[in-house]
Amino acid sequence: MEGPAFMLNPGPASASPQTLRALSTPVTYHNDPFFIERFRRAQDRLAQILETQHDVVLMQGECMLGLEAAARSLVWPGMRCLNLASGIYGKGMGMWLRSFGAEVIEIEVPFRDVVDPADVRRAFDEHPGISLVTVVHSETPCGTLTAVEEIGPIAKEHGALTLVDAASTLGGVPLRPDEWKLDVCVGASQKCLGAPAGISLMTVSDDAWGAMRANPDAPRASILSLLDWKELWLEQGKFPLTPSISDMYGVDAAFGEVLEIGVPRYFGRHERAAAACRAGIAAMGLELFPRSADIASPCVTAIALPDEIDDLQLCGHVRERYGVVLGDSEGAGKIVRIGHMGIAARSFEPVVGLSALGRGLMDFGVEVSLGDGLEAAAMAVGEAALETVQAPSV
Amino acid sequence: MEGPAFMLNPGPASASPQTLRALSTPVTYHNDPFFIERFRRAQDRLAQILETQHDVVLMQGECMLGLEAAARSLVWPGMRCLNLASGIYGKGMGMWLRSFGAEVIEIEVPFRDVVDPADVRRAFDEHPGISLVTVVHSETPCGTLTAVEEIGPIAKEHGALTLVDAASTLGGVPLRPDEWKLDVCVGASQKCLGAPAGISLMTVSDDAWGAMRANPDAPRASILSLLDWKELWLEQGKFPLTPSISDMYGVDAAFGEVLEIGVPRYFGRHERAAAACRAGIAAMGLELFPRSADIASPCVTAIALPDEIDDLQLCGHVRERYGVVLGDSEGAGKIVRIGHMGIAARSFEPVVGLSALGRGLMDFGVEVSLGDGLEAAAMAVGEAALETVQAPSV
Amino acid sequence: MEGPAFMLNPGPASASPQTLRALSTPVTYHNDPFFIERFRRAQDRLAQILETQHDVVLMQGECMLGLEAAARSLVWPGMRCLNLASGIYGKGMGMWLRSFGAEVIEIEVPFRDVVDPADVRRAFDEHPGISLVTVVHSETPCGTLTAVEEIGPIAKEHGALTLVDAASTLGGVPLRPDEWKLDVCVGASQKCLGAPAGISLMTVSDDAWGAMRANPDAPRASILSLLDWKELWLEQGKFPLTPSISDMYGVDAAFGEVLEIGVPRYFGRHERAAAACRAGIAAMGLELFPRSADIASPCVTAIALPDEIDDLQLCGHVRERYGVVLGDSEGAGKIVRIGHMGIAARSFEPVVGLSALGRGLMDFGVEVSLGDGLEAAAMAVGEAALETVQAPSV
Amino acid sequence: MEGPAFMLNPGPASASPQTLRALSTPVTYHNDPFFIERFRRAQDRLAQILETQHDVVLMQGECMLGLEAAARSLVWPGMRCLNLASGIYGKGMGMWLRSFGAEVIEIEVPFRDVVDPADVRRAFDEHPGISLVTVVHSETPCGTLTAVEEIGPIAKEHGALTLVDAASTLGGVPLRPDEWKLDVCVGASQKCLGAPAGISLMTVSDDAWGAMRANPDAPRASILSLLDWKELWLEQGKFPLTPSISDMYGVDAAFGEVLEIGVPRYFGRHERAAAACRAGIAAMGLELFPRSADIASPCVTAIALPDEIDDLQLCGHVRERYGVVLGDSEGAGKIVRIGHMGIAARSFEPVVGLSALGRGLMDFGVEVSLGDGLEAAAMAVGEAALETVQAPSV
Repeated sequence: MEGPAFMLNPGPASASPQTLRALSTPVTYHNDPFFIERFRRAQDRLAQILETQHDVVLMQGECMLGLEAAARSLVWPGMRCLNLASGIYGKGMGMWLRSFGAEVIEIEVPFRDVVDPADVRRAFDEHPGISLVTVVHSETPCGTLTAVEEIGPIAKEHGALTLVDAASTLGGVPLRPDEWKLDVCVGASQKCLGAPAGISLMTVSDDAWGAMRANPDAPRASILSLLDWKELWLEQGKFPLTPSISDMYGVDAAFGEVLEIGVPRYFGRHERAAAACRAGIAAMGLELFPRSADIASPCVTAIALPDEIDDLQLCGHVRERYGVVLGDSEGAGKIVRIGHMGIAARSFEPVVGLSALGRGLMDFGVEVSLGDGLEAAAMAVGEAALETVQAPSV
Repeated sequence: MEGPAFMLNPGPASASPQTLRALSTPVTYHNDPFFIERFRRAQDRLAQILETQHDVVLMQGECMLGLEAAARSLVWPGMRCLNLASGIYGKGMGMWLRSFGAEVIEIEVPFRDVVDPADVRRAFDEHPGISLVTVVHSETPCGTLTAVEEIGPIAKEHGALTLVDAASTLGGVPLRPDEWKLDVCVGASQKCLGAPAGISLMTVSDDAWGAMRANPDAPRASILSLLDWKELWLEQGKFPLTPSISDMYGVDAAFGEVLEIGVPRYFGRHERAAAACRAGIAAMGLELFPRSADIASPCVTAIALPDEIDDLQLCGHVRERYGVVLGDSEGAGKIVRIGHMGIAARSFEPVVGLSALGRGLMDFGVEVSLGDGLEAAAMAVGEAALETVQAPSV
Repeated sequence: MEGPAFMLNPGPASASPQTLRALSTPVTYHNDPFFIERFRRAQDRLAQILETQHDVVLMQGECMLGLEAAARSLVWPGMRCLNLASGIYGKGMGMWLRSFGAEVIEIEVPFRDVVDPADVRRAFDEHPGISLVTVVHSETPCGTLTAVEEIGPIAKEHGALTLVDAASTLGGVPLRPDEWKLDVCVGASQKCLGAPAGISLMTVSDDAWGAMRANPDAPRASILSLLDWKELWLEQGKFPLTPSISDMYGVDAAFGEVLEIGVPRYFGRHERAAAACRAGIAAMGLELFPRSADIASPCVTAIALPDEIDDLQLCGHVRERYGVVLGDSEGAGKIVRIGHMGIAARSFEPVVGLSALGRGLMDFGVEVSLGDGLEAAAMAVGEAALETVQAPSV
Repeated sequence: MEGPAFMLNPGPASASPQTLRALSTPVTYHNDPFFIERFRRAQDRLAQILETQHDVVLMQGECMLGLEAAARSLVWPGMRCLNLASGIYGKGMGMWLRSFGAEVIEIEVPFRDVVDPADVRRAFDEHPGISLVTVVHSETPCGTLTAVEEIGPIAKEHGALTLVDAASTLGGVPLRPDEWKLDVCVGASQKCLGAPAGISLMTVSDDAWGAMRANPDAPRASILSLLDWKELWLEQGKFPLTPSISDMYGVDAAFGEVLEIGVPRYFGRHERAAAACRAGIAAMGLELFPRSADIASPCVTAIALPDEIDDLQLCGHVRERYGVVLGDSEGAGKIVRIGHMGIAARSFEPVVGLSALGRGLMDFGVEVSLGDGLEAAAMAVGEAALETVQAPSV
């Protein structure tokens, strides 16, 4: 069976050739100086990308591991938590918090919207004693972006920690844990970084470590133990388990590539690909799923689907007939998605995504202004590229 | 920094060129038919290697994840467990069981020894109501092999489940879950298979699934949930999380290579490399760490070190000066180890291991009969090779 | 420096991921049975793709080596040759023939045209004693395709041999040496096959071998000796020199992929990508360089450029600003080219090529109907894809 | 079929993992700035390794191409050449020279010997008008090394050019074209550098260019034209043909690795591996093929075989039974060879070679002191390693 010709889904994103080559680096004993050097280099590189002084923790498992580990390490029965739920992942976090025994206050908004930071401030006023705010930076299924840069400082002001699910944004969208007062951020390797799946990319502030240490329920001697990583690896240089050696080579290479390209330029690509895609969507006569472009995420464009179209059928058809992977809704509604992550944020990739989407919809009988859409996107890619060339200092 | 020239440590073992190439397969969306086919193929191939009809579960995290997941899924507070402790990993399992609230009966023996199946039978007689036996197939730090093929049937006879830590044996040493009545086996990808680290290779019997379903404490909606894998993936074809795509390509390729070489031939290599290594050790005037060659593991040779030699120093020296990675003791005693895993079980690899060990010990002032040792090992490799050639039907 | 995002030039074409992985197969001694097997497999696979019983010769050097070797092996001073010159490569062959001392009769036509087989027949009538016809299958710089399927039989009928420069067609465009009576065909690995450059892919008929053997000027003990390959490798299994081992792994993998995809389906992709591209060109208001679509090559579309546009500047600009490689004219005139070779013939690649070309031309002040062009191409890709799906038996 | 476990033959040598990964770099258009940069970098790196200011020419074909191109470019009918013949390759060069019409004066010595520089001086005295000296640096089949560092100056003193076949030494054995007055040196990529086969690594002095330009018989418009490379590539930046893109990535990476390791350290490895191997050979009771260790090559050890042993049978047996590739005699006599090239010059590789050779000979009934041989070699590796560690400044 042939693999797809193009991956325009919102992750796992295509790895770059450089990252793929790094994955085939010979497997080395994890305590060998060669590997240790690479592991440390990866940590340093991520810190540089995130402009952070917080500890970087590379937990060895997909982003869901990092999120679960962070939540279990921070939460104790009876803890008062504020959960912001504007999508599937936010709602899932609420369920976790409750299952861990927390008392959960939830601000819920429709999936086409995001939580207003003003409502967060209000919640702190109305519910004293909140110790933790949990928030999803980009609800990937909905294509929205929440203003964590405003929410972090509000929480810190009220003495609460913030746990950010940055699964799909970390590495492609600005995220500054220190400046934005975000205590724990958890990102996925396989999204904007185009690195292999299997590593949780985390930052942990001193405040967060303090809270975990004070929490008798924080996992220990477990794959879910952040404290094990802190005490064994960060403090003593001993891995608590065998890391995923090959994945680490890949992750390190992906970080290196972002730094070589330049962080602002790399982030800029994602933003511009998203802008080009949205110009195309509008010109094609389709509708964005988020209620406004202001809250749309730079790493994924969610498009509203007509009621009669099944997203899974559409995506399956487009993959089979055109060799292009689009993103289905993950059950979040009448949605189809085009990712702007890593390689898929380069060059005319958005035009490919729109070609596939447009042709696919036509095959299902939906009328679209295909030429207008493709032209608008191609023009926008052109403008963006022009800008890139004119601003070589980024 | 240059990587090592030879990896003779007992895992993570060198990946084969074929497996390394597979790791650089383009990352594909995990729900893409291309990836699904590979994932399923990997499962089938592992079932074939293990000659099992049990469910194969490829949990997405290093072997420690699989072990923790299995233990947490099976154990409930107050459950009576029989833990066999002949080494570090067996003792660690006992600690886990107790921390999960089990009532643990432990048969402990010195690290140079293994638990006698007769003592297992006696324990059942003396302690009625044992629901679970936990046992480590090969205590890698000690270089010993426990007779799980005898222990499984004893447990089943008494209505108990068996959970086997087959971390270092699975894929290189015979292990037959069905025939030996082993309900849950957990192996590591990065040992005898020479596959990338990061995947737990598990088999689960129907009895074990029943026990997990009946256990209200079994993890759910967690990275540690075996039941999620059963209900979402095995039953509905939906991944509970994003699998480690690249690692899976690597694991699948490693399985494929074993099947192409032939399972008995592949296992045979490990046994023969171990025999050659032990012939060399004896001729060199060194002593095996296990009390007898009968209980020595085919995948690793543990050698007793003189009291004045520090294993970490020795291994560090050999790596730096000769470019060879040997295995330290992992804290199990005065031990140094030579692995026989994957590539390191081929051809004259044991001679390289002995050259490095012998020269290293000489550098530390230990007298060894280097030439006798190398000759004995090279002769044994020759005999083994001869045998291989004469038995083309394996 | 970053490599290009898209390669839409007419070769060297992007290698497929499978071929790239094959390139990193461990280098093996060229007389090792492992390599010999691969080399022979590559020969067999190429024979299968070309449906030929002629000898397949994989000379170790870029296509120009194979062409020079073939010409030098066949031509002797005073030999009467008929050379068909409709482009740069045809004219170059004429210069070679004359420099080797042949008496050259040349049918020359403008670069936008190809030689009519009827004119070939006429030349045989007018010039008795022609021993060799030399012809270029596709003049890549001009984007034209000559009807070698008609010319071969005419030559054979008149007792002349035919030497075909199939550099850019072999592997992507139908070419049947046996059925079409083509004595020597020389193709490039790096064009439609997307294999590494560095190997000449040749077929040689018995008649051609006979002529070479009879030619005292045929190279011997030389890198240019076809007879060395015949007598040493094909007849005795001894390589006349060390082959390019890694390239051979890559070439073998590329052949394997074509066969796995299916030869008609693989060829069909090239034809359909070309059709989609031409639909787009026309709708965009641009003009094909060849005088008629009938003689346009399926592997490359040559587009006429306005006089004021410099092709090298245009291509340089498009590469720098959009990360897309288009093909310049190679000095053949006011031409820019989009390749349809290997990966670039899949999915919406032609739309990418047209986006880059259209945007690039707009940047240079040329008016194009960008949206119409992209829509026409995307629609055509859709039709083609539909056809592919409906004809699963190809 | 499985590839070999160890490659101890004198080339093609195993490529390093880094080089193998470089080979899978995406194929890029050869005139793309990305590729041009790599090609130029490769040239610069080679110049650095050879400490040369001469032009570096990377001809696109195996070393035999470079040798033929150099000889044809320099030689004209009637030219008086002095050919030094101490082995197969030297004799082959003499045949070439004669076939190109040169008047050849030959100093021939038995294969176990090399030509004495004093005899070269004498030849110049006896035969005035010699314009070219041709010499093989290391006769790989015989395992000898000729003192080109003395011969170059003698030739220059007499106004003659020197053409050096450095196929197996370039990159692993000191070779200084400028200091040693060697006008044209031709090396192979696949020997000590462990790079992919397919590239001729050449240096050309101004004197040599002058002679070629003055030679009307020098190839032009041919794969064999050095002048095309000079005038098109070196002077105008235009490739005369499509280079072997993937091979160039590999060659560039191999050069980079040598420079990263450090040239003296890299060369030192070859010398030390050779010393260890020879210590082992002597202790094993076997005899070196060269008449004296003084003239033995650092990149290959040729061992004399008993009359009753067929080298091809022995090598075939060792490959099949032990997975080790040794070098046969290439028809140079009763010889078997162990290469010390690239990876095979590291760590205990010579011990592996001796294990394979010793066991293989025993299988054929030859008595060897296996243990003594392996011990001597392992001891020597140890001394060498010690030296390496103590001399970190090299």
